Amino acid sequence: MTDPRLAALAQSQPELRLLTDPADLEHYGRDWTRRWTPAPLAIALPANAEQVQAIVRWARAEGVALVPSGGRTGLSGGAVAANGELVVSLERMNRAIGFDPVDRTLTVQAGMPLEAVHNAAREHGLSYPVDFAARGSCTIGGNIATNAGGIRVIRYGNTREWVAGLKLVDGRGELLDLGRALVKNSSGYDLRHLAVASEGTLGIIVEATLRLTDPPPGSSVMLLALPDFESLMRVFETLRARLRLEAFEFFTDRALQHVLAHGAQAPFDETYPYYVVAEFASGEAGEDAALSAFEHCVGEGWVLDGVISQSQAQAAQLWRLREGITESLAPYVPYKNDVAVRISAMPAFLAETQALLAHEYPHFEVVWFGHIGDGNLHINVLKPDDMDQSGFVDECERVTKLLAGALQRHGGSISAEHGIGLVKKPYLGSTRDEAEIALMRGIRRVLDPDGLMNPGKLFDP
Amino acid sequence: MTDPRLAALAQSQPELRLLTDPADLEHYGRDWTRRWTPAPLAIALPANAEQVQAIVRWARAEGVALVPSGGRTGLSGGAVAANGELVVSLERMNRAIGFDPVDRTLTVQAGMPLEAVHNAAREHGLSYPVDFAARGSCTIGGNIATNAGGIRVIRYGNTREWVAGLKLVDGRGELLDLGRALVKNSSGYDLRHLAVASEGTLGIIVEATLRLTDPPPGSSVMLLALPDFESLMRVFETLRARLRLEAFEFFTDRALQHVLAHGAQAPFDETYPYYVVAEFASGEAGEDAALSAFEHCVGEGWVLDGVISQSQAQAAQLWRLREGITESLAPYVPYKNDVAVRISAMPAFLAETQALLAHEYPHFEVVWFGHIGDGNLHINVLKPDDMDQSGFVDECERVTKLLAGALQRHGGSISAEHGIGLVKKPYLGSTRDEAEIALMRGIRRVLDPDGLMNPGKLFDP
Repeated sequence: MTDPRLAALAQSQPELRLLTDPADLEHYGRDWTRRWTPAPLAIALPANAEQVQAIVRWARAEGVALVPSGGRTGLSGGAVAANGELVVSLERMNRAIGFDPVDRTLTVQAGMPLEAVHNAAREHGLSYPVDFAARGSCTIGGNIATNAGGIRVIRYGNTREWVAGLKLVDGRGELLDLGRALVKNSSGYDLRHLAVASEGTLGIIVEATLRLTDPPPGSSVMLLALPDFESLMRVFETLRARLRLEAFEFFTDRALQHVLAHGAQAPFDETYPYYVVAEFASGEAGEDAALSAFEHCVGEGWVLDGVISQSQAQAAQLWRLREGITESLAPYVPYKNDVAVRISAMPAFLAETQALLAHEYPHFEVVWFGHIGDGNLHINVLKPDDMDQSGFVDECERVTKLLAGALQRHGGSISAEHGIGLVKKPYLGSTRDEAEIALMRGIRRVLDPDGLMNPGKLFDP
Repeated sequence: MTDPRLAALAQSQPELRLLTDPADLEHYGRDWTRRWTPAPLAIALPANAEQVQAIVRWARAEGVALVPSGGRTGLSGGAVAANGELVVSLERMNRAIGFDPVDRTLTVQAGMPLEAVHNAAREHGLSYPVDFAARGSCTIGGNIATNAGGIRVIRYGNTREWVAGLKLVDGRGELLDLGRALVKNSSGYDLRHLAVASEGTLGIIVEATLRLTDPPPGSSVMLLALPDFESLMRVFETLRARLRLEAFEFFTDRALQHVLAHGAQAPFDETYPYYVVAEFASGEAGEDAALSAFEHCVGEGWVLDGVISQSQAQAAQLWRLREGITESLAPYVPYKNDVAVRISAMPAFLAETQALLAHEYPHFEVVWFGHIGDGNLHINVLKPDDMDQSGFVDECERVTKLLAGALQRHGGSISAEHGIGLVKKPYLGSTRDEAEIALMRGIRRVLDPDGLMNPGKLFDP
């Protein structure tokens, strides 16, 4: 702790835990992107909101930038600290601190992992329905800061919809209590919604009051094999109209092959171009409707093969084919695109993008999967073995520019659910026009006048 | 058109319709509050967003304030023009301009009445579920500017939840396309949510893309008579757990007596302290569950009498007892409070408030009704015949200060769904703390640097 700024912080906050060990700097200085070399000044692990406020006041006095840090499972570099910042890890603030059965809300500290939130809700006979594969590692604060989506958005919406209130320490060091967990509150600008998806650039989320809902109905899972993307849209419309869909996910055969190589069991004897995992409310009516919808889709030629889970174990096995994709691709250090268009724009956008990528990436393997019912595609580009990482990223960035152009033409978003962070910052202008970005900059200056809250993320000051 | 500023506007925008007739100034210069004397400079009726942009540019050049104007059904003075402003009425921009069956969205101009939105959705076999009694007069732009709630919030949420995208002409004259109607879009601050509930202080909403949903299920309506407020909470919890509630509204016997005096038919032979109108999904299971829930509540002593609708006509008749309240009170020019607390805080808040009002208003008639499932109470104070309007308002304002104090203690809101406008502006500090209000002021300056967008509403600059 030879840095005099750190010494000042340690002296003014003797209870605050600070780490400066090189292994800690590396561990806390990066997220699931692996493009930047971690180089934080130190790691602070506050135990409460007052310590976070003290950190912000110190940062303003010393001119040190802060990087808020949750589970660091982000894919856009939003939690990377590569420029001498102080990382503010919320990992010690990880507890549920209140439950109200009448309001059906759970109040938690920002560092609580998503899976722990699920479990706490379940213990109270209720459900927190936002869910995705990183549930064991990601934290609710990070989920809110990126407005995380996931595999249940089609039924339950994004994280935003479930945040009844939140506490934010803004860039002035003020502790703001936003929303008050009221159902109705028409009293001016809803700053709670401004904090959601702000990626730490307006302040540090320290607490959230989450809405809970009824536990999901008993459900079954269908795996379907499809010939082409057009059929995928037809199958989606059919199932949406006839079933209570809890999830509707697709992936290509390339994605499946990676999951199978990772040890999953092949669902069909043959291979097909596209697959769908659909979860739907079961019960007698649901099962009958599912069978009849399935037969209709087969009759129309939209579905070539399929299986409906007969047990929870089989449902989990089918889900694994979709949820295992990211993990199975991780060894390739893929270049990830996470784009969205309106659902209605999906066929035209996909046709254009497939042609674009086939032309621009003749030697790269491209793996497609995602959330069709939300208009959200994940496009993972795998690095060939014989290419170095930086040349590969440069090549991908060139193509992302073209992809951003296609998104702009189709009114889409360069970031559906991962956030902008560092990775997508050069392409923000494809999704938000200059007038909007200018407003975002202006708003940021109001909450973070010194520009010390996660600087360089989302947009340059 | 002798005012040289108006002459300049008319000359630069020859297609723009402008009104300066005294009857028009009075008609367009006020809303459903009747406290301020309308005194606008003139009324502009733009036909498109470009004309709205031109008006804002003119306003900046001439230093004229603008008041956006929808159906002027507001109860907080948000659409009042009493200081030489130009009223910008959206009434000519009242059409649906797009429907997408795959996205299930309806794009409408901001001046479209809510009821016309309902009808357009129904023509497409879908539903826009936000609803309240002013549906025939209020406009969707005004609904968005106040985040209107109403009688279906318990099932469908507030207006905010249904705005997939909107176009706003901000105080700089920029036409912003916010949200793009994407389901997922994690690309920075969601300015769409900032515009919702901004009460015209950030700009003028000119267009909205609304999410639609499945038509509501077949439903039945129950009218219940209850002995006390404690029973009301128990009945709410019982019905919420056992039925699919579409609405849960309460009112006191005083409210009922006004509606009956207005020509409605008495539902019971006797009178009771409290009544509930509950709408629930019917079908065989729903009816059985409703009967069993009703019997349970009667057995517990929470319900003293009740009726379940046997036809749509009867359901409408029961609804009229609740929906007719505001109209039946209108002749008394009531002083309206529209407050919210968390549902769990309702019993304690109500006990305190009832005692407060009984003590402070011994000679005034106080009528209670509202949306218990949303934590939202409407408290209408009726002017005694022998009191003049301004003395009555002064007296009410004195008590509103006390009410605001109670709200602050219980973490509530001085405006659940009406907005702050002019009426609740003195009490904003009971709901939002000083640090938040300072941020709102700062954000406003970013979008409206000259302070010409509905100045004086919500907060002073």
